[in-house]
Amino acid sequence: MSAPSSSAAGWCGRLDPVAVADVSRPDDPRLGRFTTFGQATPDALRPGRPVLLGFPQEEGVRRNGGRPGAAGAPARIRHWLYRLTPWDGQHNCDLASLELLDLGDVRTGGSLEESQEALGEVVGAVLAAGAIPIVLGGGHETAFGHYLGWHRLARPLGIVNLDAHLDVRPCIEGRGHSGSPFRQALEHPRNGTEAPVYACLGAQPQAVSREHVRWLQERGGEVFWASALQDRRLRETLAGICQRLEREGRVVWVSLDADVVRAADVPGVSAPNPLGLDGREVAALARVAGTLPAVRSFDLVEINPSFDVDDRSARWAAVVVWSFLSGLADRRARSSALPGCP
Amino acid sequence: MSAPSSSAAGWCGRLDPVAVADVSRPDDPRLGRFTTFGQATPDALRPGRPVLLGFPQEEGVRRNGGRPGAAGAPARIRHWLYRLTPWDGQHNCDLASLELLDLGDVRTGGSLEESQEALGEVVGAVLAAGAIPIVLGGGHETAFGHYLGWHRLARPLGIVNLDAHLDVRPCIEGRGHSGSPFRQALEHPRNGTEAPVYACLGAQPQAVSREHVRWLQERGGEVFWASALQDRRLRETLAGICQRLEREGRVVWVSLDADVVRAADVPGVSAPNPLGLDGREVAALARVAGTLPAVRSFDLVEINPSFDVDDRSARWAAVVVWSFLSGLADRRARSSALPGCP
Amino acid sequence: MSAPSSSAAGWCGRLDPVAVADVSRPDDPRLGRFTTFGQATPDALRPGRPVLLGFPQEEGVRRNGGRPGAAGAPARIRHWLYRLTPWDGQHNCDLASLELLDLGDVRTGGSLEESQEALGEVVGAVLAAGAIPIVLGGGHETAFGHYLGWHRLARPLGIVNLDAHLDVRPCIEGRGHSGSPFRQALEHPRNGTEAPVYACLGAQPQAVSREHVRWLQERGGEVFWASALQDRRLRETLAGICQRLEREGRVVWVSLDADVVRAADVPGVSAPNPLGLDGREVAALARVAGTLPAVRSFDLVEINPSFDVDDRSARWAAVVVWSFLSGLADRRARSSALPGCP
Repeated sequence: MSAPSSSAAGWCGRLDPVAVADVSRPDDPRLGRFTTFGQATPDALRPGRPVLLGFPQEEGVRRNGGRPGAAGAPARIRHWLYRLTPWDGQHNCDLASLELLDLGDVRTGGSLEESQEALGEVVGAVLAAGAIPIVLGGGHETAFGHYLGWHRLARPLGIVNLDAHLDVRPCIEGRGHSGSPFRQALEHPRNGTEAPVYACLGAQPQAVSREHVRWLQERGGEVFWASALQDRRLRETLAGICQRLEREGRVVWVSLDADVVRAADVPGVSAPNPLGLDGREVAALARVAGTLPAVRSFDLVEINPSFDVDDRSARWAAVVVWSFLSGLADRRARSSALPGCP
Repeated sequence: MSAPSSSAAGWCGRLDPVAVADVSRPDDPRLGRFTTFGQATPDALRPGRPVLLGFPQEEGVRRNGGRPGAAGAPARIRHWLYRLTPWDGQHNCDLASLELLDLGDVRTGGSLEESQEALGEVVGAVLAAGAIPIVLGGGHETAFGHYLGWHRLARPLGIVNLDAHLDVRPCIEGRGHSGSPFRQALEHPRNGTEAPVYACLGAQPQAVSREHVRWLQERGGEVFWASALQDRRLRETLAGICQRLEREGRVVWVSLDADVVRAADVPGVSAPNPLGLDGREVAALARVAGTLPAVRSFDLVEINPSFDVDDRSARWAAVVVWSFLSGLADRRARSSALPGCP
Repeated sequence: MSAPSSSAAGWCGRLDPVAVADVSRPDDPRLGRFTTFGQATPDALRPGRPVLLGFPQEEGVRRNGGRPGAAGAPARIRHWLYRLTPWDGQHNCDLASLELLDLGDVRTGGSLEESQEALGEVVGAVLAAGAIPIVLGGGHETAFGHYLGWHRLARPLGIVNLDAHLDVRPCIEGRGHSGSPFRQALEHPRNGTEAPVYACLGAQPQAVSREHVRWLQERGGEVFWASALQDRRLRETLAGICQRLEREGRVVWVSLDADVVRAADVPGVSAPNPLGLDGREVAALARVAGTLPAVRSFDLVEINPSFDVDDRSARWAAVVVWSFLSGLADRRARSSALPGCP
């Protein structure tokens, strides 16, 4: 792959910029004020810098027989995210110091496959620079695009998927969809690179096929059922997995499907989950993911504003991203003299 | 009462068959494919076989001053139930091996009393064969029809009612309704049979009349308030009650009024409950009920699709039935060489 | 200030009476039957008697850039409150014995400041008599009106605010609003009286400005973040604070902003909270507040029926008030020979 400094012009053409109103008050500045919106200049992709990308895509949901709407998620999540405080008073972390960069939305006008390629190209450039992609889907087909970025790096990878479903369905008529991204990733030709390892946290047994579990277990994948992950066990399980992957020399990508959370907390998703995890616990998990040095990229998918109730799910998603950012500030403070949490 | 083999033709006339589309994929079969829909042949009612019945009735809710809609519940619950996986990966239980039989809906075109008689006749035949009725209401007037089936068996009975309310109201102008089923059951003439014992789990103090508690306590009934049943205590309380009832030589009927769950998880009910039990805990309870040998019948009532939010409550109800079935598979595996959970 | 007996005629003119239908059944009386509606006669304000007041005001929400609707809350909360049982079976407490007095709604036709003055006048008279005001807002601007009542008493005061936000924003163009009540209270001229002390329980870090925390801490205020208050810790924290305040010779006012609760349980608020406290825990807290002798007044604000889902939030608010009343009955039983809980 080419270095981001030389390819920036190329992949920047894959992106549509976004704008978000600043609702800061003098005594109450908001995150939007401390975010850079627009194209990435060659030196903008610094190690450890969080880089937000939208992927307003729902064709994969449609192909999987689901209901459309997820393409509207990046706009609604940004609306609420940039109204939040750029400081975490509970942990005394300064989110402004992270200098969040929002590159806008990956273009999705062509085929699903083209948009996934485009996402992969951008994510690959961000990762190559050591920056940390935060991708807002879109359906879970977002994850295969995200994977294509990792593929360009050819590093040993661990995938942690927070999800009610395993999302290792076969392609339909040879085409990927919102239920297939991790099968596509695990089966992707890899020219000698080690296969990624995969763990699904929060699976709902009534929604998981026996064939898919078998398929996954034959490849060393792990399934953690939702009811075994309540309260602190969720965070402890993630931390344990990441420590193990780190010992194995892997970096970690965390993918969060909003349907892992129960419908009461997150009603606006493609496939509502009557028994999902607590929305607060999953937000707390996102913060832990931010703190863990092994975690190098993050996506949040399947928010579906068309089925939301008074933006409840988009507001939750915004706090999830904010929590991940707070965790990143914490990580930075521990690992360097840079500002973050004292 | 007559044996089911000779009376099948009679009570089968009380039922309207239902059909549910099969949404199985080759790698992902669904429960609907492993369910027998239609009339019961004389030998279909085997010991331990779960038999599903709908009771699309809401006249009792109307008589009690409630809002109609519960008659639509059996159809919505079936829609979601038969899309679920016929295997519980968390407990490695095979639900397909249960050979679920769905007899359709009890006819409810006549008076409430006629439909309750019809339900009692069918439930009685199912129970007499040692099969396990699973009745989908309708309002809680479903429970008096369910009771009439038990009455035909004349066995010592324990009733466990999961409910925000005691449902021991007096009849109104001599007629039963959705708030009276357990008073009707406890006062029913019984020709020398022992009276059933009754426990209500999940009662909400702000919704329970002092007179009704007194009435119940004078008859040995027990009330467990919701806030004392959070987390594991709910399952432990049910298990404790069932063990005691079993020692006393009683079989157990579990009735589950969806309004025992808080409105966030189950908004679509006749009387929403702002402080109810957690929907996950109640689903876990249904699984425990399935595993307990004393439990011989189950109903799930008061889901009201007219007030539901994106089918959240119907989806929850489907998982509750699925969880009860998973428990039954567990029970079967422990008690015999039949398939179920290894 | 003047004694209530002499000023009753004056401040009674500040109130509009309300009427609520009695839905009692002979075997199931409801709280509405045991409530006195209408004007306060001079001897009606007895020590320890709970006195309900509505404050149908939302101008402060509008000034703060929020969405209107909270003015409709008192009517919806009363609708559900007076349908509840006048007896707490869980704690065997007789709420009827409290002789709840509902003085109706404070007039809000004029400016926000006039209505806050009127609320303060009524609350002051109720407090002076040793009776216990329960104020139903309205936006959180209700709290500054409530404070003006306390100001008239000139007693050392502790304020406990259950809230996702600190509500210590500066005034906007010199005018108070729904985000400023506690800054207005803490900065109010006090002619030598000790300043009140303030604690906020349930704050959400992503919604709290660093400047506001600094401002508060410089004045000795305390902030308890929501995620540190789950389960029993919420009640224990309140009890600990109240005991400390009591040792310091302070009386306590508890203000409850419904947006401290997560949106799943209480969706109908001006600013929904995706990660708030559990609605059951907050209701349990209201009961504890009722039992604590230091707690002398209570308000419940920011319920917004225009954004409610099937009255879920209004139903919850009714149970919160009921729980506070149950706690008061408990307090009375412990402190005197008067009826309450045996």
